[in-house]
Amino acid sequence: MPVYKAPVEDTLFLLNDVFNIERYNNLPGFADATPDVVEAVLAEGAKVCEEILQPLNHSGDQEGCTRNADGSVTTPKGFKAAYEAYAGAGWIGLAMDPEYGGQGLPYTLGAVMNEFASSANMAFAMYPGLTMGAIAALYVHGSDEQKRTYLPKMIEGEWSGTMNLTEPHCGTDLGLIKTKAVPNGDGSYAINGTKIFISAGEQDITRNIIHLVLARIEGAPAGVKGISLFVVPRNTIGEDGSVGENNRVSCGSIEHKMGIHGNSTCVMNYDGAKGWLIGTENKGLNAMFVMMNEARLGVAIQGLAQSEVAYQNAVVYARDRIQGRALTGATSPDKAADPIIVHPDVRRTLMSIKAFNEAARAFVIWNAIKSDISHRSSDAAERQAADDQLGLMTPVLKGVLTDIGFDNAVKAQQMFGGHGYIAETGVEQFVRDARIAMIYEGANGVQAMDLVGRKLGRDGGRAIMAFFNEVAGFLKDNAEDEGLKPLLGPLQLSLGHLQQATMWFMNNALAKPDNAGAGATDYMHLLGLVSLGYMWAKMAKVAQDKLKAGANGATERMNTKLVTARFFMERSLPETAAHLARITAGADSTMALSAEQF
Amino acid sequence: MPVYKAPVEDTLFLLNDVFNIERYNNLPGFADATPDVVEAVLAEGAKVCEEILQPLNHSGDQEGCTRNADGSVTTPKGFKAAYEAYAGAGWIGLAMDPEYGGQGLPYTLGAVMNEFASSANMAFAMYPGLTMGAIAALYVHGSDEQKRTYLPKMIEGEWSGTMNLTEPHCGTDLGLIKTKAVPNGDGSYAINGTKIFISAGEQDITRNIIHLVLARIEGAPAGVKGISLFVVPRNTIGEDGSVGENNRVSCGSIEHKMGIHGNSTCVMNYDGAKGWLIGTENKGLNAMFVMMNEARLGVAIQGLAQSEVAYQNAVVYARDRIQGRALTGATSPDKAADPIIVHPDVRRTLMSIKAFNEAARAFVIWNAIKSDISHRSSDAAERQAADDQLGLMTPVLKGVLTDIGFDNAVKAQQMFGGHGYIAETGVEQFVRDARIAMIYEGANGVQAMDLVGRKLGRDGGRAIMAFFNEVAGFLKDNAEDEGLKPLLGPLQLSLGHLQQATMWFMNNALAKPDNAGAGATDYMHLLGLVSLGYMWAKMAKVAQDKLKAGANGATERMNTKLVTARFFMERSLPETAAHLARITAGADSTMALSAEQF
Repeated sequence: MPVYKAPVEDTLFLLNDVFNIERYNNLPGFADATPDVVEAVLAEGAKVCEEILQPLNHSGDQEGCTRNADGSVTTPKGFKAAYEAYAGAGWIGLAMDPEYGGQGLPYTLGAVMNEFASSANMAFAMYPGLTMGAIAALYVHGSDEQKRTYLPKMIEGEWSGTMNLTEPHCGTDLGLIKTKAVPNGDGSYAINGTKIFISAGEQDITRNIIHLVLARIEGAPAGVKGISLFVVPRNTIGEDGSVGENNRVSCGSIEHKMGIHGNSTCVMNYDGAKGWLIGTENKGLNAMFVMMNEARLGVAIQGLAQSEVAYQNAVVYARDRIQGRALTGATSPDKAADPIIVHPDVRRTLMSIKAFNEAARAFVIWNAIKSDISHRSSDAAERQAADDQLGLMTPVLKGVLTDIGFDNAVKAQQMFGGHGYIAETGVEQFVRDARIAMIYEGANGVQAMDLVGRKLGRDGGRAIMAFFNEVAGFLKDNAEDEGLKPLLGPLQLSLGHLQQATMWFMNNALAKPDNAGAGATDYMHLLGLVSLGYMWAKMAKVAQDKLKAGANGATERMNTKLVTARFFMERSLPETAAHLARITAGADSTMALSAEQF
Repeated sequence: MPVYKAPVEDTLFLLNDVFNIERYNNLPGFADATPDVVEAVLAEGAKVCEEILQPLNHSGDQEGCTRNADGSVTTPKGFKAAYEAYAGAGWIGLAMDPEYGGQGLPYTLGAVMNEFASSANMAFAMYPGLTMGAIAALYVHGSDEQKRTYLPKMIEGEWSGTMNLTEPHCGTDLGLIKTKAVPNGDGSYAINGTKIFISAGEQDITRNIIHLVLARIEGAPAGVKGISLFVVPRNTIGEDGSVGENNRVSCGSIEHKMGIHGNSTCVMNYDGAKGWLIGTENKGLNAMFVMMNEARLGVAIQGLAQSEVAYQNAVVYARDRIQGRALTGATSPDKAADPIIVHPDVRRTLMSIKAFNEAARAFVIWNAIKSDISHRSSDAAERQAADDQLGLMTPVLKGVLTDIGFDNAVKAQQMFGGHGYIAETGVEQFVRDARIAMIYEGANGVQAMDLVGRKLGRDGGRAIMAFFNEVAGFLKDNAEDEGLKPLLGPLQLSLGHLQQATMWFMNNALAKPDNAGAGATDYMHLLGLVSLGYMWAKMAKVAQDKLKAGANGATERMNTKLVTARFFMERSLPETAAHLARITAGADSTMALSAEQF
């Protein structure tokens, strides 16, 4: 059976040593997050994930969800109790406003917990995850009355939340939405339409489900400028908060999917359901984007999470499975063969996953802290700088961490040979589950276009210039450090590739936007690799400093960091040159054929 | 529902124009394969695959195979009739010796048909595919009596064949095999043991199943030097060829797998089953390798086949699905949105799959012709050269075509957005089916080790030197061709990377074999990319010549070839530099950690 152990120690290294979150204790909520509290929160979160969520992962995949004849949906055994335990322990409200029952701790800790939960049981973690996204949208754009009505119940776990965007004919292009909202005259709207691919759309876990639904108010302008966001509870809610009859919202069917079987993916029918406008008429996309940006970071974390759990299982197998002999002579002469972890190609595979996971975790935490700053800092310039980085990096996090996370799940599966292809070992589930993260919340090609077409040039390229300055500054500050030199040389080279690619877009994409489109995915990965390389540079510096200072019992861990940093620079960064070459090849051969010539 | 159309026209271009198979009409069987015959065979093969096999692919996946209480296995509806039609039309015997009922046509045509069948229905194609592998091993190593007993029935489709290597504790390392063979005194052996992951091990399709089984004769030397190959029919066979009672061979269970659900993957129990030695005692691996080399080329073809069918479906979807507008202005202003094939990132994805598929098909055919030459030529030097190339390229074909084939199935799935993740559209099946090809018949890491550790240095590097000379010769011969220059420049550069990598191994891997192991997978892909690039250079030259000569109605097709060639050189070949960088980084950071530090 699959195993999972939350990487608490590595996370504490990042929070305390690399990013030193104590220095943000002027921000609301951070003062409460003392090192002791953080360690206790992570330890408790690890326990929940390892002991409650992970044991339901394989069984949840095998059982899946069932839609019953009456339209109700049965989730896998144990999910309801797990949700109650999870919400009951305060995990949904961890970073939420105490006014509505939250704990007000940094969002950064929520992001860490999201990683642990998604590694332990991704399909399960989507139920609280979507609820948290809906809470965030209501918190920012909802009226005071809406917040009072919905947030406390959602935070305590009695009600859940969903997001309803996609329709059969429209996913990425939300301007095509047809779902209609007609004013009822009492401040509410009658919602009519069909939504598809609604994760957690119906379930038997919570007493009520609060759907956030994009729809078009009768007579609204065409396209994205005529879309509004509505809150549509599955069951009516009385003045006293009691839950009443069904609000003409029903699950028409559930999808049979490649993975995340434990999460119900529903076709939702709105047949005159009563909904209330969130925020301003026709500004629904703005409100939805609050939810979507948070959701995109959440999906990025899923990519890392599946890579991490797949890696852990591959390591256990590689240490245990004996097959063949080491090239340099038997390491276990007393056994019939050596464990396969002696083989260089097995190690190469495991090292490449490990080197990604640790850098990706740093990348997530670095940006999660920016999210906290952007929401909580009282310094406008600091908020803006954090917001710039988050805007730039959100598509990179989502696109790169899910692309590589999936690849890593496949690589980890490969370590099992034929045993990795059968359901019993559980590793093929990680591949199937990880696959969705590249698709939903904006397919990765869309992330790349968001990055190159929108985020890169925004405010005169302020965000990317700030990133260049930060990395170049780090390289300059540490240029004389002999220990870091072998690591910083490759990073300098890759940063140069990124700068050349950026310059190439400036010179070639304005007049010919296809040049940006044809290079967008490569640019996203190029920026991702430089970011991960920068994370390794920062981690290596701290590891080296700790070793010099005596390491305090962490000598082996810090040495491991330095080896892994070197592996990343030697083995992952060379890819940046290939990305640059593809970008500067331009769009001609990509665009030359007619649709019929394919 | 998924679609499939066999690429007959593209295959004829390769057979006739690029590889000019008519010039081999001095080889047995080739004289019969006139252009008319080849075209008729391909057209007929396409029809069988499109009309009989493909319609059973999705349903076969959904139904899967079931083991019944009595140990029998039920395959999906329609598979038995399809097998009878397939064998009845002579496809199993296409390239087999007419003495045993085959048609004696070139193996190359069999390889082509294997692609079509594997695209149409990979799980189904494994039933005849394994039978053909077993036929090949019996043909080369079996006694005359064995050949007379088994081959005609297997060729006509009345009996099928399997290969039984893997045991619970041993896959790659066949030296660990425990299955025992004890002489019965009458020339037969009693076989006892358990084999796992036996594809098509039990089924309700054929009247008998001829198992080829690796086992250890009592008292044989330890390790791979004590392994023998046995033929073990599931049911006893009378003097007159009639099929009798069960031969103490049974299916203990079937595996629940990620994909290829239509093929039964069995645990096979041999409880004193009667078997007969094939070839020489303790030389079982030699006999098995005949089967395995052919099987590896067959698996390579599966990688291409899944890439091709996934591509075809993605193209249909991308032409049809409307979403968003072209960056350069609406192409379908009368519709609510443009088809997604206008988006550069969608085209980039489709072009990269297309550029791979066409080159991979050429690479397969080029090597299949070498296989024909190695078996059928009367010229010893020609046979040896062909054999050298096949030995070198078999692991490259298997490793690279299945790695990239799987990636391409994933990429094609991505084009469907959320619709690609649900079973209904059929595209996620291609991903799940393609995944096994990277694992079985020697996991791809094992292929890389076979290439670098065994094939590269064999006979003083004769095979790789011949390849270098051939590609360099082509580049030199066409150096002055202005039309080809933009294509040959990148190929020249990538050939240089391959030569440098080869040199680096010579200088660094002899004293330190881990340097070879840590670079093996990168080297395999580097050689694969240069090979595919060489295929594109050859195809582009022919396309250009045909255009100059008037193209005979094929102008658009030949122009498409030239654009696709350019795309490959610009977008796929840049990867060779990254492979070289990783190889020359050496094994230090890969091997530095202890097993516990992972």
